[in-house]
Amino acid sequence: MIDATHDAARRSCVASANGHPDFPLQNLPLGIFAPQGEAKRPGTAIGDSVLDLAGAVAAGLLTGAAAEAVAACRDGTLNALLGAGAAPRQALRAQLSALLAEGADAEAALGPLLHEADRCKLHLPARIGDYTDFYAGIQHATNVGALFRPDNPLLPNYKHVPIGYHGRASSIVPSGTALRRPNGQRKPAAETEPSFGPSRNLDYELELAIWIGPGNALGEPIGIGQAAGHIAGYGLLNDWSARDIQGWEYQPLGPFLAKNFGSTISPWIITPEALAPFRVPQPARPAGDPAPMAYLWDEDDQENGALALELEVWLMTPGLAKAGLPAHRLSLGDARGLYWTPAQMVAHHACGGCNLQPGDLLGSGTISIPGGDGSLLEISQGGRKPLELPSGETRRFLEDGDEVTLRARAVREGFASIGFGDCTGRILPAP
Amino acid sequence: MIDATHDAARRSCVASANGHPDFPLQNLPLGIFAPQGEAKRPGTAIGDSVLDLAGAVAAGLLTGAAAEAVAACRDGTLNALLGAGAAPRQALRAQLSALLAEGADAEAALGPLLHEADRCKLHLPARIGDYTDFYAGIQHATNVGALFRPDNPLLPNYKHVPIGYHGRASSIVPSGTALRRPNGQRKPAAETEPSFGPSRNLDYELELAIWIGPGNALGEPIGIGQAAGHIAGYGLLNDWSARDIQGWEYQPLGPFLAKNFGSTISPWIITPEALAPFRVPQPARPAGDPAPMAYLWDEDDQENGALALELEVWLMTPGLAKAGLPAHRLSLGDARGLYWTPAQMVAHHACGGCNLQPGDLLGSGTISIPGGDGSLLEISQGGRKPLELPSGETRRFLEDGDEVTLRARAVREGFASIGFGDCTGRILPAP
Repeated sequence: MIDATHDAARRSCVASANGHPDFPLQNLPLGIFAPQGEAKRPGTAIGDSVLDLAGAVAAGLLTGAAAEAVAACRDGTLNALLGAGAAPRQALRAQLSALLAEGADAEAALGPLLHEADRCKLHLPARIGDYTDFYAGIQHATNVGALFRPDNPLLPNYKHVPIGYHGRASSIVPSGTALRRPNGQRKPAAETEPSFGPSRNLDYELELAIWIGPGNALGEPIGIGQAAGHIAGYGLLNDWSARDIQGWEYQPLGPFLAKNFGSTISPWIITPEALAPFRVPQPARPAGDPAPMAYLWDEDDQENGALALELEVWLMTPGLAKAGLPAHRLSLGDARGLYWTPAQMVAHHACGGCNLQPGDLLGSGTISIPGGDGSLLEISQGGRKPLELPSGETRRFLEDGDEVTLRARAVREGFASIGFGDCTGRILPAP
Repeated sequence: MIDATHDAARRSCVASANGHPDFPLQNLPLGIFAPQGEAKRPGTAIGDSVLDLAGAVAAGLLTGAAAEAVAACRDGTLNALLGAGAAPRQALRAQLSALLAEGADAEAALGPLLHEADRCKLHLPARIGDYTDFYAGIQHATNVGALFRPDNPLLPNYKHVPIGYHGRASSIVPSGTALRRPNGQRKPAAETEPSFGPSRNLDYELELAIWIGPGNALGEPIGIGQAAGHIAGYGLLNDWSARDIQGWEYQPLGPFLAKNFGSTISPWIITPEALAPFRVPQPARPAGDPAPMAYLWDEDDQENGALALELEVWLMTPGLAKAGLPAHRLSLGDARGLYWTPAQMVAHHACGGCNLQPGDLLGSGTISIPGGDGSLLEISQGGRKPLELPSGETRRFLEDGDEVTLRARAVREGFASIGFGDCTGRILPAP
């Protein structure tokens, strides 16, 4: 629902928020932060600052259901707030929008509660009970399938089933955490025996992260009409992938060590309310595609269930840094590259009775569009066409010291643009 | 290490423990239980009773590191005790073995701390952060592969890679929890279009459960020589599987909804100390099989890393119950059907840097041996040869109302046999 909190004319008393590419007054994302040397607590990003939400409750600046939901987050996670559903989240947004507006009464009281974002540590926003990765980027599935099966890139189930698999929750890290290149077994086609060592084909994957709010009881499916109500917000996910390990291990039960050495998420949860102006119809299925089955079909979801987001991937390398060159943009994509909506992923996940819980994380699958590939595997066509960088370096896959940054931005004429904040990770050498 | 706690001559002051098939004085498994109407707390099974370990600490009957590790389990889970490693667990065993021995001084003080097991509720013993399912039962992998590829049942990676995949932690339930048959998409070969509805090919899988004790930091592999030290104990796992849903959804990323509607575990953690007399050499690899790679090879693990356990699956059906007939034994197997040791699974899981955490659960994969199949898929040969029951009923796969019980028993001449306790679940109709 679009309301006064989305008015592009609203300005914040936090000067850096006005015109901020990610965090203007119209965004108000939720996260967990720690000011230098202090304990973790809930916060919201506003311009170049972070507002201490627990402090705002203590100071009496937040009231009612919003204050209760923030106060319930005592353990340094947002799980309680996410699980409380839309009502307190919306009340919190309305109160924050008023509190942080230009000329608001509380401006003086806010001072001690605002921290410079650069001096804060951002943590995982929630305790992630389970993490599931979907495969809903149809162009990505097609591109990857074509590398192996040029004549028949998409498997027969793809347009019927929102394909997904369970991922590893323990190794999900917040943006800014460096990760070691994994060792593992790999057997390239050119070699007759498998060997063990550092992955030679390390890749990133550009994905949307979907945070679960209220859960469902085991054995109780979630209807497609209710599914969006179980989503508490969105972020970015880099599903780092060791392609050579994956190629050797993944039959018959799917990816395992190729992806569980680390996954990076952006630390701010962008709420469904902040994204309300940027909802768009689910892109029309090409003629001949099967209609979604009844448990996946909802008229409102078809008309408003997709998100229009510009997605970018940036690469910084040791060579670019040495040459004093800026990061190189690898791709410009769009979240409309997803064949299934987030609500369809939720309804599918629960259709057999699997219980989702507050703070669970879904990945959308890698999002590619024509000309905007979401992985190096696609950009380099399986490593066959190395990418040339302005530094003279080339890349088939990632090298040690490379840093990948994902960005997302919602843009619509007549509305303030909002961004997701960076999802950044750097690769360290293998142990 | 075999010590005085394993002495077969030791008798307990709890009379029902002496000669008990599962829980004699030589077992002393760890769990979380609640006496009727009371809060969850750590306990140990002794005969037909459960000893309240938190109460024993409060009464001063346990001391030192053992008492501290029990006392740290304040949240109704054993995670703190599991994470504390072998020393306090071994100290606890030694103290419990003395405390519960026949003629021990504390016999009077024990009375109020002993609860009838039948009147207690057994909970999940730990908060399971992540659950991983391996595929180490080579006979099972061969049997299942042969259903699809008669000439080439095992894929080329099988004897090099301990194949595994991530499962769903939220839907793991303790023995005795009924589960609903899942709805889902399925497309049998005989049908041209997929459809949605209750699974028609619902199955069980007999697996060993492996509980992780101390974890490892992200990016820090666990050497094979240290891997056994990261295992806190063992149990039974029924990895319920909807074969029709699995067949349609699992390409290319593995099982998802086919297995995440529920997994049942036995509630008692059987410690490595209790199982010390039952360790056996890893069965010799057939001539021509590749040697394990260096990161998976340890001499002690090869000589002592496998477990000799008799494994049973029992089926109770509405028809058997109506006819007054007992449960029917579906199979008698052996844990030596595993191609990889538990330590190899741990070392492989962490070899790329993935962080394991206390309370994480590993499944071994379905264990079959010739004549002792671990699933109905194998017993009925993919549903083609229905099983006939003494009630006159037949089973290709499980019907509503069927109850499956897994049992495990360690037997060795000169030692008291110990059991794992039941792992039972009943199937309810689909929603």
